Amino acid sequence: MSLKKILKKIKPLDTEKMKLARLRQDSLTKPTKSLGYLEEISIKICGIKRKIPSELGRKVVILCAADHGVVEEGVSAYPQDVTAQMLLNFAQGGAAINVLSKYLGAEVVVVDVGVKGEVSHPFILSKKIRNGTANFTKGPAMSRQEAEKAIEIGMELAQREVREGAGIIATGDMGIANTTASSALISALTGFSPHLVTGKGTGISHERFEQKVKVIEKALALNQPSPYKPIEALAKVGGLEIGALTGVILGGALMQVPVVIDGFISSAAALLAYKLCPLVKDYLLPSHLSQEPGHRIVLAKLGLKPFIHLDMCLGEGTGAVLAFPIIEASLKILNEMATFEKAGVARKNEQRVKA
Amino acid sequence: MSLKKILKKIKPLDTEKMKLARLRQDSLTKPTKSLGYLEEISIKICGIKRKIPSELGRKVVILCAADHGVVEEGVSAYPQDVTAQMLLNFAQGGAAINVLSKYLGAEVVVVDVGVKGEVSHPFILSKKIRNGTANFTKGPAMSRQEAEKAIEIGMELAQREVREGAGIIATGDMGIANTTASSALISALTGFSPHLVTGKGTGISHERFEQKVKVIEKALALNQPSPYKPIEALAKVGGLEIGALTGVILGGALMQVPVVIDGFISSAAALLAYKLCPLVKDYLLPSHLSQEPGHRIVLAKLGLKPFIHLDMCLGEGTGAVLAFPIIEASLKILNEMATFEKAGVARKNEQRVKA
Repeated sequence: MSLKKILKKIKPLDTEKMKLARLRQDSLTKPTKSLGYLEEISIKICGIKRKIPSELGRKVVILCAADHGVVEEGVSAYPQDVTAQMLLNFAQGGAAINVLSKYLGAEVVVVDVGVKGEVSHPFILSKKIRNGTANFTKGPAMSRQEAEKAIEIGMELAQREVREGAGIIATGDMGIANTTASSALISALTGFSPHLVTGKGTGISHERFEQKVKVIEKALALNQPSPYKPIEALAKVGGLEIGALTGVILGGALMQVPVVIDGFISSAAALLAYKLCPLVKDYLLPSHLSQEPGHRIVLAKLGLKPFIHLDMCLGEGTGAVLAFPIIEASLKILNEMATFEKAGVARKNEQRVKA
Repeated sequence: MSLKKILKKIKPLDTEKMKLARLRQDSLTKPTKSLGYLEEISIKICGIKRKIPSELGRKVVILCAADHGVVEEGVSAYPQDVTAQMLLNFAQGGAAINVLSKYLGAEVVVVDVGVKGEVSHPFILSKKIRNGTANFTKGPAMSRQEAEKAIEIGMELAQREVREGAGIIATGDMGIANTTASSALISALTGFSPHLVTGKGTGISHERFEQKVKVIEKALALNQPSPYKPIEALAKVGGLEIGALTGVILGGALMQVPVVIDGFISSAAALLAYKLCPLVKDYLLPSHLSQEPGHRIVLAKLGLKPFIHLDMCLGEGTGAVLAFPIIEASLKILNEMATFEKAGVARKNEQRVKA
């Protein structure tokens, strides 16, 4: 199915099911809305899934990895080789995302959409479009065809996972220098200046941070990405894994499963998906709030309120996976708590105010 | 053991074990400190437990319940009977704390330290000190002996649970009007005015909120609790469950297990425990940030950074239990991630900056 066709097939949420879920929340033995945003999460999931599910089903993190030509400009604290090295670490189960997923009952799907050089391992899905992007301070990061291809790969991955039973998808990323590409793309799509959206990534020095901002300013001045042409902006200053994650988000929405947005790179992909299809916003669940300043800006644009505040900035899907038990807990509350009637507990009694 | 003796037996954390844990965190395949506060949680637990544990062990919520004479003043949206009704709901497994604990692998210990009237159920531990406190707008809430007794009961509960294998304790509360008592106590212990620390509890109207603040001001003016006499302040304007939770926290620290602080009522107990023994602060872990404005004030005083932001205000230990998987995840990271050496991943390379 082509991208255009898919975008038209994404449907609004089922508001009838959401009303039913709200009524049910209000009948449970707790003061109305006293579980705050946890209640909203459960209601949103009912709208997405068109039913009142008792659990999430299979939890899958789709971790898309790629390299970035802009690394040449000295924007990262780590050498480019680390992308491929970390992919093998994911495949061998030694990275943070593996440990968290194992503990929290999630599966990790590792996808190479553009890592530089050969990375071969039975646990790495090879969907390589090219050997990393070009240095976007010297021209576009990739062609428009490559950008579309990245999105299509992501959509197919999400569709396949849902067909195989995934009930919720989390986004994850790996790619040395991808906070630079994400900052550039978010700046292009929102109009916020690079100084406001750029952060210190995996922990660069102040000097390198200043260099990073200059690099992004240079790339934007050269490529002139437009906020009204999101795929073109992706091609000009984005990244292959950002494109693939955009596709994962669109594919999740198409298949009517919630998509949990991880950190900064995932938020860039979510913003792009939203630009392509505003309805997609309703299928997103936030997770943590990253140290990267642009993350807060994008989540606010998407109306997402991150509920885990741990000052993390690792990516890989680590923040999204940590959100799984909280998200699933919202459904347990909805399904398993006693109602006022059943438990014989008195309801609120505002008229008893003593003046 | 008397309260005074116990307070002297609480020890500082094991800083050697904390240094070892920090070294281990820094050797793992992630940028230094990129897991933010999650890393700090793991290090704190190693200091508390004097070892590098691979998991938390048995997770126990100690839920202390009591009634409050001040309910007569129209400070709550719910009638007093709801305390006893909810205790039976806890015993029957129908409340939010039961559902969350079941899902997240925690046990709930329900303790009646002063519910009004008889509440009898095999799953409710009866440690009733009196049938609710007195209305503290007309005199002290309880005697000093009763306040001390409440603290002792809590200490014994925590010690017993740890002896029976609890590796982490969460605090939970139930008691109609206990946000009023907590606000009064926090105002007394911090000097913040009642208007700043008081919130809308389980969802009262604006008129009732103004009434609640006036009631607290009246109670403070009448009873004159001193911030330098914490047990006396508890007796004058506190509550029996707040006293018991203070004891739970002290008992947890004595037994060298982390104590997870739930919402507003638990934070009042934590503040009181800290006033009795400042070292206790190091044994506390935060969980969620409540809607109640005083919660933020107390957590800041205790140096605790809440990491779950769901705008909840239910109590019962619900926020603390939601924090368990995140807290345990921090230990999984510490124990199970690959090191840079083992995984063959390159470390940070700051000298590669391109000017």
